[in-house]
Amino acid sequence: MSTMHDAFIEQLKDIYSAETQITKALPKMVEAAHSDELREALQHHLEETRGQIDRLDRIFEELGTPATGKKCKGMEGLLSEGEEGIRSHESGPVGDAVIIANAQRVEHYEIAAYGTVRAWADELELDDAAELLEETLDEEAAADEKLTSIAEGGLLATGVNQEAGGKK
Amino acid sequence: MSTMHDAFIEQLKDIYSAETQITKALPKMVEAAHSDELREALQHHLEETRGQIDRLDRIFEELGTPATGKKCKGMEGLLSEGEEGIRSHESGPVGDAVIIANAQRVEHYEIAAYGTVRAWADELELDDAAELLEETLDEEAAADEKLTSIAEGGLLATGVNQEAGGKK
Repeated sequence: MSTMHDAFIEQLKDIYSAETQITKALPKMVEAAHSDELREALQHHLEETRGQIDRLDRIFEELGTPATGKKCKGMEGLLSEGEEGIRSHESGPVGDAVIIANAQRVEHYEIAAYGTVRAWADELELDDAAELLEETLDEEAAADEKLTSIAEGGLLATGVNQEAGGKK
Repeated sequence: MSTMHDAFIEQLKDIYSAETQITKALPKMVEAAHSDELREALQHHLEETRGQIDRLDRIFEELGTPATGKKCKGMEGLLSEGEEGIRSHESGPVGDAVIIANAQRVEHYEIAAYGTVRAWADELELDDAAELLEETLDEEAAADEKLTSIAEGGLLATGVNQEAGGKK
């Protein structure tokens, strides 16, 4: 019968796979972004993601467990949806709104996943891991809020107005 | 070039597919749940999800657009991960913690997705749709909080204590 500790390692491996997939997908989103603000936010999150992988490496080292061995199918599906979104929209405010929609699904996957392992680390009294996971969780929540503010700060209105202006 | 209105319909179709997939997956999670509280919360969310599909049907009817035509790959990945989680853990507190972990990834997908279309509906001045989407968004957030409270209200501790007690 598997223990909470086994399940914790399994969750961390899932997240490790998710983050690794994200570092490969983000550059395509950066390239597809039309607005400078969105491109910069995604580029910043790519660098942040590399730091988050470093934190996971430190946790795996402490646990004496390899980080690999699980493919995160959830993230695979989310990113495949994201690529489809990029392919089916031209570069512009509507395309950017679609990139943000998909990026926020990715962020929310991570918010749920890190929220889970942070709580489990607390219960398992793995204090260093809990602290590292908390740092990442805060970054993910901030990245999600940044995307909301870019969308609400005019990008959506630009997309709608372009339409209204008949530039479609 | 696609418009915000086209992108809005595309997002709604994605969510419709996601919700339909969830109604098929939730009964398996209900069956696998060990704790009564978790089973009841999942059963309640299944009924809620049917109501959310009804709301989407009303929006599609208003828009004069069919609801079908898109398979949500993101949700497909999340649910396949969830099934894997059920298969690889016996029924008990650890299995329940894993069910909650996967269910919260699903909830967060929906929180991100409904957050997007609610904001877009506002910009597109589709007031009735915005209101219906807001109702669902509130339900999803409440469902996520309920799962957190079940996990924190003793289930995680039970899982960890079982381990500590050597019952693994």
